[in-house]
Amino acid sequence: MSIIIKGGSILTPRGLVKGDLYIEGNRIVGIGKTTRSKPDAVIDGNGKIAIPGLVNAHTHVSMSIFRGYGEDLPLDRWLKEKIWPIEAKQKPKDVEASALLSFCEMIRSGTTCFADTSLFDASIIIGAARKAGMRGIVARSFLDQGDAEKTKRAMAELGSQSSLMHGKDNPVRLSAAVHAPYTCSEEILLRAKSVADTLGIKLQIHASETRKEIFDVLKERGKYPIEYLDSIGFLGPDCIIAHAGWLTKREIGILGKSGSSIASCPVSNLKLATGGISQITELDRSGANVALGTDSAASNNCLDMFQTMKIASLLQKHHYWKADALPVDKAFAFATANGARALGFDAGALEIGRLADIVLLDQAPNMAPIHDILSNLVYSAGPQNVSDVIIDGKVVMREREIMTLDEPDIIRKAESAAQDIKSR
Amino acid sequence: MSIIIKGGSILTPRGLVKGDLYIEGNRIVGIGKTTRSKPDAVIDGNGKIAIPGLVNAHTHVSMSIFRGYGEDLPLDRWLKEKIWPIEAKQKPKDVEASALLSFCEMIRSGTTCFADTSLFDASIIIGAARKAGMRGIVARSFLDQGDAEKTKRAMAELGSQSSLMHGKDNPVRLSAAVHAPYTCSEEILLRAKSVADTLGIKLQIHASETRKEIFDVLKERGKYPIEYLDSIGFLGPDCIIAHAGWLTKREIGILGKSGSSIASCPVSNLKLATGGISQITELDRSGANVALGTDSAASNNCLDMFQTMKIASLLQKHHYWKADALPVDKAFAFATANGARALGFDAGALEIGRLADIVLLDQAPNMAPIHDILSNLVYSAGPQNVSDVIIDGKVVMREREIMTLDEPDIIRKAESAAQDIKSR
Repeated sequence: MSIIIKGGSILTPRGLVKGDLYIEGNRIVGIGKTTRSKPDAVIDGNGKIAIPGLVNAHTHVSMSIFRGYGEDLPLDRWLKEKIWPIEAKQKPKDVEASALLSFCEMIRSGTTCFADTSLFDASIIIGAARKAGMRGIVARSFLDQGDAEKTKRAMAELGSQSSLMHGKDNPVRLSAAVHAPYTCSEEILLRAKSVADTLGIKLQIHASETRKEIFDVLKERGKYPIEYLDSIGFLGPDCIIAHAGWLTKREIGILGKSGSSIASCPVSNLKLATGGISQITELDRSGANVALGTDSAASNNCLDMFQTMKIASLLQKHHYWKADALPVDKAFAFATANGARALGFDAGALEIGRLADIVLLDQAPNMAPIHDILSNLVYSAGPQNVSDVIIDGKVVMREREIMTLDEPDIIRKAESAAQDIKSR
Repeated sequence: MSIIIKGGSILTPRGLVKGDLYIEGNRIVGIGKTTRSKPDAVIDGNGKIAIPGLVNAHTHVSMSIFRGYGEDLPLDRWLKEKIWPIEAKQKPKDVEASALLSFCEMIRSGTTCFADTSLFDASIIIGAARKAGMRGIVARSFLDQGDAEKTKRAMAELGSQSSLMHGKDNPVRLSAAVHAPYTCSEEILLRAKSVADTLGIKLQIHASETRKEIFDVLKERGKYPIEYLDSIGFLGPDCIIAHAGWLTKREIGILGKSGSSIASCPVSNLKLATGGISQITELDRSGANVALGTDSAASNNCLDMFQTMKIASLLQKHHYWKADALPVDKAFAFATANGARALGFDAGALEIGRLADIVLLDQAPNMAPIHDILSNLVYSAGPQNVSDVIIDGKVVMREREIMTLDEPDIIRKAESAAQDIKSR
């Protein structure tokens, strides 16, 4: 399959290029040239801007059906009183309904790649993602919270997932995950790390999200969360730390040195009033790979990465009282190239040879004029501008119509799953 | 002219109602009933939710063509080095082009009513707003900055604007405005207040936006900005204070007692790194009328009131470390009913007898499921959900097509105005 996007503007790492964008198979093979052998499909790019698809480096697609459920509570009460009890009632078909709803929202808002963790069998979300045509990494997340029986089960199950491994070229891949240093024994943290190393897959964890967690980990393990994870050898280039909103300078240095990825989730942190603003500019300078995530639609309450990119930028300006704290090229890279790197995909930039994950934005009043296209993308753009989405060389949305999924049916099923669970 | 929106959901102050929404002339005359005499137009509301149009209580539509120009500078340098020099080169046709671009963006993002100030003759923006079919108040804003010649001119011009007054039923109305306590002499502040009182129009001013301003006003006038405005009798129910991001507890009390309106602009404050978070929950409790604004697209960089409503809410949670700092019904009222009240219009809620400013949202994955419609509106909704807009009983957008303006032409003209000015 080959596709030409004809006559639009293409955002490359070296700026806007006018011309054609060529895709063969799942890779970008040409940018800006005007002739080429006959493609299988032509998309009129006139008046459109092609950008790399956005990467959501931390989310929980199983939770989208809890959007707006259990509002206005701090993290610990929100989890214990609302989310964990309702998740316990969630069945595999509810997880699938929620995942498919999430993928519709992601596609419509220009997200082509995601990292997910959930309490459920990873095969459900992997299957839904394949149906949608998304790219991503998916993990079942483990926690034992001092429960020996749970530890035993988690130890066994962590190792048994290799059946879900697929070829390296598969756009949806298995990942390993453990919930957080304050909910996991050292035993299962190390087991997850070793499974990830053995299978060569990514390792996801939440850390340093709330102040309470910092105090709890300090008390129990005598170290700050990141120091602790470092001390047990958990960190490294395949590790993705979600949140990292309360870090000491020393921990920023540790994360940089280890080459870990950060998935900062500013909207969720604000909404749950964690009080922490992830120091992503300092993390970036320290050598960590900074990416961005929405967290779940239950604590955001959407999966809009344009919004997350803007709010992440605004919070850096606010936090440091510096209007130039985070340049727009950095912010855009956090939401694209760095995200792809964190998740282990050769995507996130429109360059020859890269994976073809491409979003087309059409002309709209909120994107005009163009004094600085990156500024418009980081501060002005939104889901309303997304017209077409290509993932892994396949057209998943064409002129605002999702091609891979029956969207009205998915919305109906998600709505009824949400109501069903509450009545169980 | 009468319109029926048939068979949708209607967000009233008492919750969602299923049924029809009737409009006669420019007012809502029926909600939820199923029969009615033959209307002039029927809109199929099936699967849609009708909400009151959002109110942008502080913006500068003349500046939208500077979106993305002069990025990443703090307020004082941004104004002095970038904005004021380029505004000096702006001609009336550029102002009109910028205003029309802004109205396209507002309509597409569900904003039906706005408050504007600019350095230009108010008739230009009033004319453009009428063409677009918007509702709003428009003011030429004065400042003299210790320049006696400017003071003299401003004193004369402030009084001469009454020619722009129109009947009370006109959806676009003249307002009075002065820039800020730190840029205006007491003479013109009082003159603007007296003109507003005489004409019975609203009085707009920026105040307490940056810390530098606080220090400057304290030094020069011996009082904090709001204390100072109070001491000269400037405040009152017809006064709209934009920003109010750095207030003492005493000033919050003063604003409440005076019954003034606040137009908090959280996105602009973050973007210009003012460091202040307007204490809108405390202001609301004190009795002030809290409304929200985007500020200009040059410092936001969009005019999306859904985003402003969400970020305003998130910042209250963050500022007070309280996940329930600002309930969603309050946040929604700030962006609708309170905004309408600030601007002096009997709009902002879907109730019989109110002005018919109505936005229809269609079904979309980011708005499902509905556990709590207000939560979805405040935290999940965006311009992508807006399908139809009615202002003052007239359809200005139908199924995403703006009926009152030639949108592609407006985008082209705004783009060329933006490029022309830079080359002058």
